[in-house]
Amino acid sequence: MTSSNKGPRLEKLLKALREEKGFVSGERLGEKLGLTRASIWKMVKKLKEKGYTIASKPKMGYALLREPEALNELAIREGLSCTFFGKKVHIAQEVNSTNTWAFEEALKGAEEGEVFLAEAQTHGKGRLGRVWFSPPHRNIYMSLILRPKLPPRKVPLLGLLASLAVAEVLKHSYGLNPFLKWPNDVLVKGKKICGILAEAYGEAEMTSFVVLGIGINVNVKRMDLPAELQEIATSLAEELGHEVSRNELVKKVLEAFEPLYLDLGLGKEKELLDRYKAYFHMEGSEVLVEEFGHVIEGVVEGLDEEGALILRTLQGPKKVFAGDVRVKKWANSW
Amino acid sequence: MTSSNKGPRLEKLLKALREEKGFVSGERLGEKLGLTRASIWKMVKKLKEKGYTIASKPKMGYALLREPEALNELAIREGLSCTFFGKKVHIAQEVNSTNTWAFEEALKGAEEGEVFLAEAQTHGKGRLGRVWFSPPHRNIYMSLILRPKLPPRKVPLLGLLASLAVAEVLKHSYGLNPFLKWPNDVLVKGKKICGILAEAYGEAEMTSFVVLGIGINVNVKRMDLPAELQEIATSLAEELGHEVSRNELVKKVLEAFEPLYLDLGLGKEKELLDRYKAYFHMEGSEVLVEEFGHVIEGVVEGLDEEGALILRTLQGPKKVFAGDVRVKKWANSW
Repeated sequence: MTSSNKGPRLEKLLKALREEKGFVSGERLGEKLGLTRASIWKMVKKLKEKGYTIASKPKMGYALLREPEALNELAIREGLSCTFFGKKVHIAQEVNSTNTWAFEEALKGAEEGEVFLAEAQTHGKGRLGRVWFSPPHRNIYMSLILRPKLPPRKVPLLGLLASLAVAEVLKHSYGLNPFLKWPNDVLVKGKKICGILAEAYGEAEMTSFVVLGIGINVNVKRMDLPAELQEIATSLAEELGHEVSRNELVKKVLEAFEPLYLDLGLGKEKELLDRYKAYFHMEGSEVLVEEFGHVIEGVVEGLDEEGALILRTLQGPKKVFAGDVRVKKWANSW
Repeated sequence: MTSSNKGPRLEKLLKALREEKGFVSGERLGEKLGLTRASIWKMVKKLKEKGYTIASKPKMGYALLREPEALNELAIREGLSCTFFGKKVHIAQEVNSTNTWAFEEALKGAEEGEVFLAEAQTHGKGRLGRVWFSPPHRNIYMSLILRPKLPPRKVPLLGLLASLAVAEVLKHSYGLNPFLKWPNDVLVKGKKICGILAEAYGEAEMTSFVVLGIGINVNVKRMDLPAELQEIATSLAEELGHEVSRNELVKKVLEAFEPLYLDLGLGKEKELLDRYKAYFHMEGSEVLVEEFGHVIEGVVEGLDEEGALILRTLQGPKKVFAGDVRVKKWANSW
């Protein structure tokens, strides 16, 4: 049996599950579909991976509790209160990375505000060449094309503002208490819920475009995270106790980010950084920063007027413009 | 007759010209090759475009004076005193743009120091989306891959240093008196002889690679320039009165640029900018700068410690990090 036949078989199983009011045994499903119980079990696992919530109980069998919400362009664009973010929304079932996809489209001329979303990423990218864990159908993998009239020195602010937009949405629309880890991680109770990857292209003095990738852990369960992430990552569903509409969340993030982006273009950096600081509580924390291969140890003093991290080190004050920050000891709790 | 047959016909004409000690009439060449005098005349024109120096005199005919030097990897690499610039030298007959070519290769993993050269560019790129005039076989169209450990704010310095490298070569190896027009044009007697296009790719805070394009007008004749360039561009051959080996010049530029690049990595910005200033004589010049759509009028005061241009304007002092500089009135002459 080739994998191209699996689709229709999964469809048939779904149909059979939908027809039942409650639990149905694997044996009965097998009879209906002309398959073994073992095959049914494997296919149920596949449906779960695709985001279907299926309960399974010994002796009772399976019950379809909830069908997944697919990413949907209309659901995102309907009533979207943006002027140019999301004017085009591209959705793919699977890509290597939405940032790579959007980058290629930007090189071909895709416009500012176009959004690229995928249900799954085979090579999700994190900052500094890292992998971004990208299980299918559960989370948001979104890349936005920006063509800011900004010198490269100000481009890092875009990542800060994107993380601020996500933090404001998590707080005001979902009642969470997010925390910004410089430069642009969003944490909840010390665990990462969102990461930002901004990739820029342009002449040395003048950025041509930025692809802003936003990865948000939405409905993934902690137990479905790889072991090494279980203690350091979380999701909206984990924190809220219920699943969240990804289309709704995409819409809210676009609506929150666009005005911040426009304000940056108007030179309102100070106000924007003040808003960022409302979620930034790293002052006093002991950190290790790896910047261009050098490790700097220090205590966070704050942010400068360009969004750089100011450290107090044994060698005196030091500004960090880029790099990887590991917090040895948080000064504030969440 | 298709164009694919022209190659062998040109080869035959070249062979015939090489066999002659002096001038040979178009008529005799035509008889030898079984072609009309008009065809011979057209083919001679083609050979000239390819860089052959062919004298033509009424009644005497044609004489092959000099064959063009082809770009040659061995000639460039032999005795090249660099540690990693030019460790690979790629040469193409024709590309759209060496920067686009090198950029694609860098995305695929080409290493720092790899050099991409072409005999011709069909879409040579200048700064700010402009076209770079790229006649075949006469000039240098070179792109170098750099993977600097620099924050984006310092990347513009690479263009400044590349132009400095070219200026130092023009002065010390060719006896010219070059002049740097900020940010990275090299002028001789007020006319452009070299332009630099640095294209960068990376995360917002950390550059992944820079493709540094260096275009040098080497053996092109002023009369072969488009009308709109004749008053504002020049070439080494025009200034020196004789042709110059492109392979030699490529080698010298790589040898001059590598130590500057290494010094930048060591943080010697101040010394490097002092060397740049030795060729920068814009102080006091009246300029118009277009930066992100705004036009600023001012008088050049100098350069700051990061290589930005400092202007005195009616609204007070102003730093320019990027943009297009038009000089209304030069304060210094060359």
